[in-house]
Amino acid sequence: MARDTFYSQVKAALTKEGWTITHDPLKIEVGGVKLEVDLGAQRSIEGVLAAERNNEKIAVEVKSFITPSPTNELHMALGQFINYRTALAEIEPDRKLYLAIPVVVYGDFFQLPFPQRIVRENRLNLLVYDPIDQEVVKWL
Amino acid sequence: MARDTFYSQVKAALTKEGWTITHDPLKIEVGGVKLEVDLGAQRSIEGVLAAERNNEKIAVEVKSFITPSPTNELHMALGQFINYRTALAEIEPDRKLYLAIPVVVYGDFFQLPFPQRIVRENRLNLLVYDPIDQEVVKWL
Repeated sequence: MARDTFYSQVKAALTKEGWTITHDPLKIEVGGVKLEVDLGAQRSIEGVLAAERNNEKIAVEVKSFITPSPTNELHMALGQFINYRTALAEIEPDRKLYLAIPVVVYGDFFQLPFPQRIVRENRLNLLVYDPIDQEVVKWL
Repeated sequence: MARDTFYSQVKAALTKEGWTITHDPLKIEVGGVKLEVDLGAQRSIEGVLAAERNNEKIAVEVKSFITPSPTNELHMALGQFINYRTALAEIEPDRKLYLAIPVVVYGDFFQLPFPQRIVRENRLNLLVYDPIDQEVVKWL
């Protein structure tokens, strides 16, 4: 995939939150096809016992939704999310997949009933980011 | 959506099989968004009793898969299919949705394990067409 417009901003936002970018892009080969998710990252998280530390791993597909047709971007984002989730479940089930979307698009297009329903029914994980401040606004 | 390359061939193939093209494109407004499926068609089918005739209705999204990356086309096709199916279920539940793909692509890319799994798990209906003879090869 060609990198989306806000790709470097999302990378900076993740780094600020303590994530280490481990894959750029994250390449997956599964069932005869080659897939590429924009980013792979990991973060060390403390367990209940101080001695216990685990690595939290994510894959992030970055979307800008700045084209004139957010609906077309939704088609592509939904298809990528389901394909990547299916592939990751097979080869790396502990890596959680997120779709990164700008906060302005989240507050506007993603509040419409149809996108809301698609996100809910297809269990899409969203990472809402601010491309100007280069920060993660929320994980959903 | 911009019309896919083999759009007119699929239209001809459907007409040959007795379908009447009723929507070109089929526009759907649902939950705050506007969607467009390439074609809407219907065909009169006989019931068990001779007097009983019903209209069979379909919506068809035409894909060529002639780009260098069939995987990217699969992302888009999958996203469109799920979005259109969700929308149709809400406003016109008796219209069945199909993804039209060329017979060469069906015999090649769609036989790989990953696309096979995606088609099966997401219950995609395929209309396999021959763009040269302008015929429907099979409905899956």
